[in-house]
Amino acid sequence: MALIVHKYGGTSMGSTERIRHVAKRVAKWARAGHQMVVVPSAMSGETNRLLGLAKELAPSKATDSYSRELDMLASTGEQASSALLAIALQAEGMESVSYAGWQVPIRTNSAHTKARIESIDDTKVRADLEAGRVVIVTGFQGLDELGNITTLGRGGSDTSAVAVAAAMKAEECLIFTDVDGVYTTDPRVVPEARRLKTVSFEEMLEMASMGSKVLQIRSVEFAGKYKVKLRVLSSFTPWDIDINEEAASGTLITFEEDEHMEQAIVSGIAFNRDEAKISVLGVPDTPGIAYRILGAVADANVEVDVIIQNLSKDGKTDFSFTVNRGDYAKAIDVLKSKVLPSLGAQEVVGDTKICKVSIVGIGMRSHVGVASKMFRVLSEEGINIQMISTSEIKTSVVIDEKYMELAVRALHKAFDLDQPPV
Amino acid sequence: MALIVHKYGGTSMGSTERIRHVAKRVAKWARAGHQMVVVPSAMSGETNRLLGLAKELAPSKATDSYSRELDMLASTGEQASSALLAIALQAEGMESVSYAGWQVPIRTNSAHTKARIESIDDTKVRADLEAGRVVIVTGFQGLDELGNITTLGRGGSDTSAVAVAAAMKAEECLIFTDVDGVYTTDPRVVPEARRLKTVSFEEMLEMASMGSKVLQIRSVEFAGKYKVKLRVLSSFTPWDIDINEEAASGTLITFEEDEHMEQAIVSGIAFNRDEAKISVLGVPDTPGIAYRILGAVADANVEVDVIIQNLSKDGKTDFSFTVNRGDYAKAIDVLKSKVLPSLGAQEVVGDTKICKVSIVGIGMRSHVGVASKMFRVLSEEGINIQMISTSEIKTSVVIDEKYMELAVRALHKAFDLDQPPV
Repeated sequence: MALIVHKYGGTSMGSTERIRHVAKRVAKWARAGHQMVVVPSAMSGETNRLLGLAKELAPSKATDSYSRELDMLASTGEQASSALLAIALQAEGMESVSYAGWQVPIRTNSAHTKARIESIDDTKVRADLEAGRVVIVTGFQGLDELGNITTLGRGGSDTSAVAVAAAMKAEECLIFTDVDGVYTTDPRVVPEARRLKTVSFEEMLEMASMGSKVLQIRSVEFAGKYKVKLRVLSSFTPWDIDINEEAASGTLITFEEDEHMEQAIVSGIAFNRDEAKISVLGVPDTPGIAYRILGAVADANVEVDVIIQNLSKDGKTDFSFTVNRGDYAKAIDVLKSKVLPSLGAQEVVGDTKICKVSIVGIGMRSHVGVASKMFRVLSEEGINIQMISTSEIKTSVVIDEKYMELAVRALHKAFDLDQPPV
Repeated sequence: MALIVHKYGGTSMGSTERIRHVAKRVAKWARAGHQMVVVPSAMSGETNRLLGLAKELAPSKATDSYSRELDMLASTGEQASSALLAIALQAEGMESVSYAGWQVPIRTNSAHTKARIESIDDTKVRADLEAGRVVIVTGFQGLDELGNITTLGRGGSDTSAVAVAAAMKAEECLIFTDVDGVYTTDPRVVPEARRLKTVSFEEMLEMASMGSKVLQIRSVEFAGKYKVKLRVLSSFTPWDIDINEEAASGTLITFEEDEHMEQAIVSGIAFNRDEAKISVLGVPDTPGIAYRILGAVADANVEVDVIIQNLSKDGKTDFSFTVNRGDYAKAIDVLKSKVLPSLGAQEVVGDTKICKVSIVGIGMRSHVGVASKMFRVLSEEGINIQMISTSEIKTSVVIDEKYMELAVRALHKAFDLDQPPV
């Protein structure tokens, strides 16, 4: 008997029929003798519906200004689906109880719409488990120290599930979703993409941040920090699939390197076309330049991803970075109005038709020449690299958006990702 | 400057356009210098949608068995509309904050789906009002001493509003709804029905209980107990109607008799076709009979309304009562299985095709002959009376359902309700 956390995403909870399947699946695990904590997302579409109503009511207002109320609003979607799952479990003959985030409580800071979990009190949940109940912990939400409801941001239910698993030292946290695991790349782009049986949490971190939208990045960070064994698997298999088969399915995200059985140098190709490139040209190359440019951008609440500063020439340099496409206009505006005049830079230019392609692999740590192989492959395909960014286990390039699929396919093949590992 | 509570019903909150109107109306009151507390219902249809999902998940389970989870579920509808109204107010330039029932907190007993308010802590709300904010208190819900969310039953937002007004000693509680006040009877049945400018809370109590579905009965009881001035008025007038005109519109429910300006003997005709009649025939007329019959019915959670015990004959009597039509089958079943065998009664018979028609009026206290005039009018129309029940300010008769409209129209005319009071 072990303590197991299940998390079910929005499509897994998307209808009463789907919820009934979730209940039957959870009941199967409970009847096999496990103590079960379940974290469901809102029914698919519900969060968008609620936030859409808010947007209709305050079309010209920055959402930041009413973020406390957005959290009051958005948190209801998960609370409703939690209660529905508790009811479905009871209809299956399983005792169950649902708790809103504030009832557990899951304590967070006060950063509305993107709060961070600070602590979880598991007293109530443990008492219910001991009494033989399945406990539904409402995902995506918490309680700040002023007694306000907070939410954890998009995909926050993943983080809730991992945090609960960490706080309760669960044996494993199973993330049920609409895909059956983590792939070497998006199978819609490369049909030969393979499902990985295991992936290290560091690789997963790079992949999550790159738009392999299987898991929210913060949940992976959490899993790494607290050594939570995380498994991504499908909720669209029949609910009565053999439990041992199910427990070994999907992709296991491991935190121990020796558990990392697939010793490929590159584990996957991630990509992302949500970014835009901005360059500030002819910047005087003096100390503090990066701060003055990026500080102004950060003050406008725009997150910056890849950053490149070119070699200086005649005391001037070019400074480039990428931002989320949705923030492009805001960033350009800030730079033109606040930075250019005081900085004495020549010009701000930008491009929204770019994409970022990354090779990710924990094996890159100990292998040289991986990045240069990537550049060679792209060059052979005639793809011009606009920016390069590297980390220990990832190399990313920014290229013209129209070459994205070509680049991903070529890299997938060049790094033998269509072949099972030796 | 006064403290005013507004309550808006589901149709008043039925769309973002309607919510925007509510916000503009509330802002008008706040800008006129009033401290404003607003209690909104869920958007119309939302509660039914949520409970419908629950029913789909547990079609064969008694809702009592999962009532805690139903409250978790249903309470989300009001929380969402409260947050939306707060956002709409902020878009109108009014500072505002919404609180869920547990945040206020509004403390209740633990009777899930029909909880009763025990206390309201107004500390937070007062602090916000002093700081110039409009406070949205989520209706229909509270917190029990175990930390569970409770709901107050259908129409419970009325009760929330009145309870908040009572706890905070508000000058007046305005119940905005889709009708413009309380009428002498339902205008759909009697086109000549008149709107009452004032009505005593005792009359309103009888009318609310009789299916004049303008206000939840418990909210009227509350208003009477705590002497809350209650006004029922329409939210479908233009929001920018002159505030003094608005403050005098609708129907004022008064608790002081000298404020009761319209001295008619009968104030209104109420009716209700939600009941069914049950008779237990040939009951041995011994002490404790009523308890043994009605106790068993109450144990099955069936509420009984009109009760009649006939004169005894040969040591046997007939015992009749009415129940809600939805409970008819259950009550018959309980009587046949549990009561008949042990009681030695002959038979249980019933009729679902009945209705109850009542004349209501505080003036009946001091006038004799009102009931007999009612019976005469019905007899002149050839309507047979099956049961009679009287209280100080009401006389009700149970008649064949098919005569309902005829009886209501005849009584409305006979008691001069189509004429303004002298």
